[in-house]
This record gives sequence, C-alpha cells and structure tokens, in this order.
Amino acid sequence: MKELQVVYRVECAAAEVDARARALAVEQSIEMPPEAVASAFVRDQVIGEVLAIDVAGTGAFDVRIGLSLESTGGEGGQLLNMLFGNSSLQPDVHLLDFDLSAPAAACFGGPRQGVPGLRRALARASGALTCSALKPLGSTPAELAGLACALAAGGIDLIKDDHGLADQSRAPFEQRVPAVCRALARAGLDRCLYVPSVGGGPTRLQRQLRIAREEGVRMVLLAPMISGVGALQEIADEFLVLAHPAMAGAARVAPPALIGKLFRLCGADATIFPNHGGRFSYSEDCCRRIADAARTPWHGLAASLPVPAGGMHPARVDEMLRFYGEDVMLLIGGALLASPRGVEAAAQAFVGAARAAGRSR
Amino acid sequence: MKELQVVYRVECAAAEVDARARALAVEQSIEMPPEAVASAFVRDQVIGEVLAIDVAGTGAFDVRIGLSLESTGGEGGQLLNMLFGNSSLQPDVHLLDFDLSAPAAACFGGPRQGVPGLRRALARASGALTCSALKPLGSTPAELAGLACALAAGGIDLIKDDHGLADQSRAPFEQRVPAVCRALARAGLDRCLYVPSVGGGPTRLQRQLRIAREEGVRMVLLAPMISGVGALQEIADEFLVLAHPAMAGAARVAPPALIGKLFRLCGADATIFPNHGGRFSYSEDCCRRIADAARTPWHGLAASLPVPAGGMHPARVDEMLRFYGEDVMLLIGGALLASPRGVEAAAQAFVGAARAAGRSR
Repeated sequence: MKELQVVYRVECAAAEVDARARALAVEQSIEMPPEAVASAFVRDQVIGEVLAIDVAGTGAFDVRIGLSLESTGGEGGQLLNMLFGNSSLQPDVHLLDFDLSAPAAACFGGPRQGVPGLRRALARASGALTCSALKPLGSTPAELAGLACALAAGGIDLIKDDHGLADQSRAPFEQRVPAVCRALARAGLDRCLYVPSVGGGPTRLQRQLRIAREEGVRMVLLAPMISGVGALQEIADEFLVLAHPAMAGAARVAPPALIGKLFRLCGADATIFPNHGGRFSYSEDCCRRIADAARTPWHGLAASLPVPAGGMHPARVDEMLRFYGEDVMLLIGGALLASPRGVEAAAQAFVGAARAAGRSR
Repeated sequence: MKELQVVYRVECAAAEVDARARALAVEQSIEMPPEAVASAFVRDQVIGEVLAIDVAGTGAFDVRIGLSLESTGGEGGQLLNMLFGNSSLQPDVHLLDFDLSAPAAACFGGPRQGVPGLRRALARASGALTCSALKPLGSTPAELAGLACALAAGGIDLIKDDHGLADQSRAPFEQRVPAVCRALARAGLDRCLYVPSVGGGPTRLQRQLRIAREEGVRMVLLAPMISGVGALQEIADEFLVLAHPAMAGAARVAPPALIGKLFRLCGADATIFPNHGGRFSYSEDCCRRIADAARTPWHGLAASLPVPAGGMHPARVDEMLRFYGEDVMLLIGGALLASPRGVEAAAQAFVGAARAAGRSR
C-alpha cells in the first residue's frame, strides 16, 4: 500500500486512458521503462501504481495514483516534485488533489504552531484576526516604520511586509526590519506581530532569518512557490510562517490542494489567498475549499489560518466573516492606505468592524 | 526609463485593455492604489508603466510593461515575483517574454561559467556533449555507483542524478554522492562530470553543497521552480549548474522566457527541457526558441547549454544534432538503461553516434 495518493485530471480519449494513467504513474515515480528495473524493492515499493480511473466528463478522467512516501524523503520540495514536477510539463494533466497517511503527514510536520499558536502570540483567543501590509515598494525604512506604527495604533493584529518588499537598495532587509521593529517597540505598539518578507537563496535567506531573530521577530512571510516549499518546511521549525501565494496560481494545480493542503502540510501557520470578488478571479467555491483545506481536521496536523485578500475593503468585513467564520484573518492593504481619513483611523474602523461582526453572531 | 520590460498576453475585450494594462502595471509593482502614493520617488521610479499595447488576435493583446530594476533588488526570486508573482493568480494573463538593460542583466550574473566553462571542465572544445541519468529512485548508493561507472565507461560526458533522487532513506545524499564520486575515481573514470541533484530548504541545501564540495563535485542539478531561482543564482557562484524544468511547465509562462531566459539570467550553465517528439508535447518551434534563448548573444552574458531530453533515444541523435547544432548536450536516460545490450555498450553507441554526427557535417 502506497502512503501517498494523488488525483490527476487527465484529458485524453477513453481508449488511451489506461496507458496514459500508467505512463503518469511511471513519470511521477521512477521515470524509466519499468521493464528495465532490476531491483525488486523498486518494483514492489517505488513504482507508482494506478489505483482508480473515474470518468470526469467527455474526454476527461480522474486518475488516482499511489506513490511511496520514500520517494519524497519527507521533504516538502521533493513532495511537490513527486506530485507534479515532470507532469507539469504535460498540458493534458492537472493536479487535483492528494492525500497521505497520518504517519506520512507527520513526517512533513504541518503548522508547528498553527491557529492556536498564532492566537497565543497575539493574545486573541477568539474572533477574526486583522492584517494589513507595509507598502509601497520603493518606500524608505523610515516611511515603512511610520506606516507600521499608524496601522498598529489602529489596532491591526498582524502587519506584514508587502510581498514586493525583498532586499532592495531603498529599504534593505537589514535596515527595514530593525527600523520597523524598533519603531513599534518605542511607541509601545509591539502587541501586534510585524511579519517581514523573507526570500532568496540559502545564504541570503539565512542572513535575513538571523536579523529577524536578533530583532525579536516571531513570524515571517514567505512565498513557497518562489523560495521553495522546502524553505517553508525548515523555517516553520523556528518562526510562525505566513505563506504568500505568489506564483502559486500559474500552476495547473487546484488551489485548495496547493495553497490549502501543501502549504499547510509543510508548515504554513496562516495562508494568504485571493478572495472572491477582489482583483483576482477565484470563485466562492474555490475560496471555501481553500479555507476548508487549511482548517479541516487532517491527520492530527494543526490548522492553518485562512487569510483571504487581494483588493479587499473594510465594507466587506461582515460578509467575509459570515462566509469564513471567525477562524480567519482578514487582510486589507491598499484600501487602508488610500483612505481619506488617514491610515490609523481607517485601520481602527477596519478592526472595529471585525470585532463588531464577531460579537453580532 | 525602466530597466526591465515585460510582455504579457492579456485576454480581454478591446474596450477594457487600457484599464487592464494599467492594473497589471500596478499589480506587478506597487500593488496599491497609485493615487494613494505619497512618495515622489515611488511615483517616478517604481510604479510600473504601460509602454505598448498590441493586438494579438481576437480578444487578446500583448501588453508591454516597464518595471524598475530596483524592485527586484538584483535577486532572481524577486525578479520572478515582479515578473509574474501576483498576476499568475489571474487566469487572463500569460507571461510571454521579458528583457532588461545590459547593466541590469549583469546584476543577475547569468551563467558564471556557461558553455565555455562546461566544455573546459570536460576537455571537449567542440562537438555535442552527452548526458545520462542515474535512476531509478529507490536504488541503493552501490547500485547507482555501479550504473555511473557503466555510463562513464561507455564515454558519457555528464552523468546526472535523476531529478527524483533527493535525500531519501534508500540513498541519502551523504551516502550516494561519496559512493558515486569514489567509485568513478577508483575506476579511473572521473573524466566525466557526476552531477548530483540538490534541493530542499536552506539548511539542507547548504549541507548537501558542503558534501558535494568535499567530494570534489564541480556541477550540481537543481530544479529552480522547486528550490527557487534565488538558490540557482547563489549556487552558480561556486558550482556549474544544470537546471531541471520540474514544475516549470505548470506556469502560464512561455517556456523560452522561463527555461531559456530566466534560468540563464540567474546562472544556469546548462538547461534541460522536454524535446519535441518525446514524452512531452513541446513543439519544434518552442524547443528552437528555448535553445535560442539559452544560447543567443544577450547583454554579454555567457551562453547556457541547451539540453533537450524526455524520452529521447540514440536513434534520434543525428536528427537532434541537425536541429540544434553542436552547442548542445543530448540527454538520454531510460533508453540506455533498457537496452538489451547492457548500459555500457548502449552508452558507447550513443556517444559514438553523437561524435559521428558531428564529424559528418
């Protein structure tokens, strides 16, 4: 019995689907002609196995394939590689879903702190959490620190760097992160979590994490599809991690499987995704399934907090809380920055709306 | 003048394209309402700029956008983020192409050694290079070392780990890499390059690189879309790098822009892609454009060697060399392993065919 089960949507003629499914099972495991495999271990344990083929429409089939946990080595990047690495290059295949045994899930770790840990860090046992972003890219550390203080004074729980903030010369990581952390502390506003954006190759990433550690940062923002789900998995051992979906939509991978399940499995304590009705086109159903994948009981892993975002507005708070319930973090960035009332007042109104919506139910 | 120019294919109605293009320029730069930007620097230097909109068919437009080099910080992962991070989540947008100024290209470095460096490392000044793979996943270090020796004895230039070989318990990196390196050295077969597959989060990756360094490895295999283009960019400072396209096909990104240009820009000395007529469906035209993007003179960057692969067979050597010319590395894996003549003889025939095809022109 293979520990890892993967469901692909394959588009092909009915007469071809058996062969196509077998080819997919080989592509995503040993990637060589099975008849040339000498090792009994590989034949018995490693070659992918076609478990089921279901009709999913005209010329479309859902193919369920069993893969070995051994093939992943318990490493997040290699799991993604085995799920869809080579078959991503075949346009007739979509990755729909995957599941794994409870012991296999434990190998990847899931969120180390998850929703309870995040609520503890913020001393908010219940109710929706609020989040906003430091932007725009091109601002100086002092400008960003000022904005962080205004958002924090307005009561925002979690203040993240825009995912466009990296290590640019206008606000290098080593200047930006201390500037924001110290400004918040000086103003007595460090009840909130400041979440700097980290990324880059291994040396750069470790240098950034060292600075974050020294400044007392407890949570970081990472885009796993840019910096690697392997990096997510490692960093989650030390920091709370907020996953960003950059590049995650380019994949022919169902968003609930990627942004919900895979990011959670590899340690995202909270996961950002484009809410329906914003600048992106995810449907209500897709958003509900992402939130479900992030929060539903799953092999004893901690839950990952859903963070709907992407062009949201305080006017939508009530509707979003009805849709997602209170185990959610609402992320509103640009709308606060553009408010004629000023950032602090706009943040206050947003936070107030989130609390009021929680109380009214 | 923005240093970075990006071309997107946008699907929308003609009446909407101006607004859609402006929204895209904002999404891929400051990601907030432009009217709320206070900083003159950001308004002048950082906000993306719509440079041109060309009709590309019914309901399709090619939108050219200018972005600042500053927004990338000269870091490969952040470049990808600015090129397509958020807009990957919008299904009406494809990333078609990008270019940058020569000084901007120099920031990213390109292949540090490139085709000349790879030819020097192999002492092959001319002619097509040959490559094969250690597989299947699930083999022991001794089995893989034996296979490496057979391929090397057959004259293969470059012997890479299958991209499925990571850090699994059957052949952990720290056992596999020394086993293969030492077996080749003992047999006097270390004229070839053994190219181990590296990956994972920063700590794991650096541990693997340390082992590779200690064993005298000169080139490594990395899948930038799984481990990060930032990792590619860093590792290329020390090792020759062979880029693997795993997960690169899932993106709504034109393969020549991603597998050719971006991987080259960030340091891939050679780049694997699915050849036409194999297990994948890339067209002849797409493959030609990938090879062109990898090799064509571009801002003084070294060339990246194209490595067509994916179900290739020695019988196709002559045709492939006619198609790609001699600045190419032919990668044949499974067909050698499955040969009834045995691996060494099959490798020898493959190498012989590559040399003969070179001489006949």
